[in-house]
Amino acid sequence: MSVEPPQHLNPEEFRRAGHATIDWIIDYLTGIEDRPVSPGVQPGQVRASLPDTVPETGEPIADLLADVDRLIAPAVTHWQHPGFYGYFPGNSSPPAVLGELLSAGLGIQGMLWSTSPACTELETHVLDLLVGLCGLPDRFRSDGPGGGVIQDTASSASLCAVVAARDRAGGSAVLADLRVYTSNQSHSSIEKDVRVAGFGADQLRSIETDDDYAMDPVVLRTAVEADVAAGLIPCLIVATVGTTSSGAFDPLPEVAAVAAAVGAWLHVDAAWAGSAAVCPEHREILTGLEHADSYVFNPHKWLLTNFDCSAFFVADRKFLLDSLSVVPEYLRNTASDSGAVIDYRDWQIPLGRRFRSLKLWFVLRSYGVEGLRAHIRHHVEAAACLARRISSNQRLKLAAPASLALVCFSHVDGDNAGKELLAKLNATGEVLLTHTQLSGRYVLRVAIGGSRTTSDHVDRLADLLDELA
Amino acid sequence: MSVEPPQHLNPEEFRRAGHATIDWIIDYLTGIEDRPVSPGVQPGQVRASLPDTVPETGEPIADLLADVDRLIAPAVTHWQHPGFYGYFPGNSSPPAVLGELLSAGLGIQGMLWSTSPACTELETHVLDLLVGLCGLPDRFRSDGPGGGVIQDTASSASLCAVVAARDRAGGSAVLADLRVYTSNQSHSSIEKDVRVAGFGADQLRSIETDDDYAMDPVVLRTAVEADVAAGLIPCLIVATVGTTSSGAFDPLPEVAAVAAAVGAWLHVDAAWAGSAAVCPEHREILTGLEHADSYVFNPHKWLLTNFDCSAFFVADRKFLLDSLSVVPEYLRNTASDSGAVIDYRDWQIPLGRRFRSLKLWFVLRSYGVEGLRAHIRHHVEAAACLARRISSNQRLKLAAPASLALVCFSHVDGDNAGKELLAKLNATGEVLLTHTQLSGRYVLRVAIGGSRTTSDHVDRLADLLDELA
Repeated sequence: MSVEPPQHLNPEEFRRAGHATIDWIIDYLTGIEDRPVSPGVQPGQVRASLPDTVPETGEPIADLLADVDRLIAPAVTHWQHPGFYGYFPGNSSPPAVLGELLSAGLGIQGMLWSTSPACTELETHVLDLLVGLCGLPDRFRSDGPGGGVIQDTASSASLCAVVAARDRAGGSAVLADLRVYTSNQSHSSIEKDVRVAGFGADQLRSIETDDDYAMDPVVLRTAVEADVAAGLIPCLIVATVGTTSSGAFDPLPEVAAVAAAVGAWLHVDAAWAGSAAVCPEHREILTGLEHADSYVFNPHKWLLTNFDCSAFFVADRKFLLDSLSVVPEYLRNTASDSGAVIDYRDWQIPLGRRFRSLKLWFVLRSYGVEGLRAHIRHHVEAAACLARRISSNQRLKLAAPASLALVCFSHVDGDNAGKELLAKLNATGEVLLTHTQLSGRYVLRVAIGGSRTTSDHVDRLADLLDELA
Repeated sequence: MSVEPPQHLNPEEFRRAGHATIDWIIDYLTGIEDRPVSPGVQPGQVRASLPDTVPETGEPIADLLADVDRLIAPAVTHWQHPGFYGYFPGNSSPPAVLGELLSAGLGIQGMLWSTSPACTELETHVLDLLVGLCGLPDRFRSDGPGGGVIQDTASSASLCAVVAARDRAGGSAVLADLRVYTSNQSHSSIEKDVRVAGFGADQLRSIETDDDYAMDPVVLRTAVEADVAAGLIPCLIVATVGTTSSGAFDPLPEVAAVAAAVGAWLHVDAAWAGSAAVCPEHREILTGLEHADSYVFNPHKWLLTNFDCSAFFVADRKFLLDSLSVVPEYLRNTASDSGAVIDYRDWQIPLGRRFRSLKLWFVLRSYGVEGLRAHIRHHVEAAACLARRISSNQRLKLAAPASLALVCFSHVDGDNAGKELLAKLNATGEVLLTHTQLSGRYVLRVAIGGSRTTSDHVDRLADLLDELA
């Protein structure tokens, strides 16, 4: 044949480039504290620096790595910097990175069991291990009607819960009558998911919270009962364990009782806080979870596994499959037809899927139970210390009780003083904090939990607060 | 403080483990032809081999790599094997793997411009480069109202198109009156997306195809006009460029005219075939794309970039934002408020996002225009040769014209003979083919396009066909 295939890197070139990439990453992480957490670039600045065409002939990987070093790394926000306290942590760790690398190297597709049996079976296995590791209810194990699956984000997992709940209650035929309930502190992804699933804005009831920002179950019950009395159908209640703004815990037993009374699906979003359940002393936040129809938490937030890795569990996978299974001829195969295997494409929105369980498996085995617990515990302890330091600072005021490793506070001089303080803190380059609003007040958040964040770093933050408040 | 942080690998341990992982991947890929394409394991077999608890204390990475080698690699389907012809190709390449590795190593989150400016700006840049590289309409460039975004899969990208089209036409308030149209050969993800977005099964019109399995625009027009006459609202038409079963191309200009006449959104799904547009001689399949509201193709199928990397373009991003933007206080920031930046979280379902443009950038620069075209051309040429070999085999019959690098055929002795042939071919371990159904007949598919598949491999497949048919 006359057409030549492209020039791939040969094995030795790949090896050299691969080792160089590993070395670059280690240099980046080792030196990360010398960088400001935020890059301080202007909109358009990065792009203006980039080569503006695809070259006619290929360039060496060494040149690409040099450009990453010169153009990209200085313009990212350093989520792995130990002074990163924004949003929620986005953990990473050496075993997770290597698991991700292996997944890319294997280059397989796990949409069906038959398209890579090990991809499906390791995923089932690792999620069952998580059930044990976190003391989750047995209903989420795969050896009954339930089971777990890895999704990219809690947003996507919750969308699956919304769709399954919607369809269990009658689906499109009764869509206009369906109602969904969540607290006014729940994550914005719930509102987004509900909209994506075809609900109107008025079909999502925003339930008021108590003084600690947890859903008020009496308000919930009243809202649900009023809707039932009006002939509407409560199909889903979404409870949050560890809200984004302040780490509040909705009272699962009371919420579950309301859901049970009307046959609504109960979905529990513990995207951030769920990782804490590796420690037995924190499992009380999940009391009542045994009544939930679905549950999600993100090892990619606070369990040392790099994004994306969201663990989603259902009590009965039948409802997921009813909503999400479409089987064209070109995906039929003997194993699926036998019913003896899991095809995870039916447990998620996309068809294709990466081999994400590898990195989670690497993390669980590389750290072991003790290492995972140490990771959580030293952050929780550091948060308690920080909360004490803030309490003793007369310019600052805790805006909510410290929740696990999240500490929220405001400035006694008001919102503008808080905004100024945030700007000053972030301008040091040593730390990055973000803000929220609680009871109408501007609040600074410190989300401790970075893989490289130690109590010394948190002490330094407390010193900065003393200095700058 | 009393609680010790966990023991991470130190930099030298990470380096050794990283180099060993790179070496393992190179050994795996170098020796991949010695493995049967399909692993031939039984359901449950992998899982039974796995350690059944999380260890109390951490294990060395070397032990994990040994388990990957011993338990995992022998039980995956080898998508990177040059004899893999199933489904569509799932490309990978050294620069893509290294880009993915860098993304994991940086460990950043690109949900907002401000959470990592380089992540957003490189993505915008690379997608604009794709517009030029593939000769796409300028309306998909980011310097007008449109632009591109990387999603995980075409399923998810198409869901965004469905939701935006639904909402542009009136959203939940008129949902019951909305209708969606796609051919009976379109990908199953379209049906799934429509269901997820809250439509009932009867709201999706399945349009008949012509003798070449392309959407019949006359049937489409008739269906649309009948619905309009009945007071219904055609909100979306999904055309396919390169159907999954046979690589058929819907006639975009005629389909676009129908969409324009009723103001319906036109979404074009070229998940597989779109990569061919890097070659000017294949761009005719996209004639009419300048009328599309959205377009998706997957570099992770046939453009050397490992999964996941789906390129999604819209002519007017306003409609995506209208449907998908929800802005809670804790995500507000100066850059977003200024309107001067893109926040890609508003262009997709999930909130969080990986730094996926790095691997695509690495591929474009490492191969260059010439390398990318060579990759496509040598597969298209190999497919033409295979089609000739099949045409001259009296036991076999092409089931559709060879389309780019996809060749479909049936056995002259009927479906059972075809099934037996597929089983025999796959049992050799040298190749993996999958099947579909066309006009009620059982059809074998050869999707050429693996990163490591050369014309010699395709010749060998042709020999096997001669031998086993």
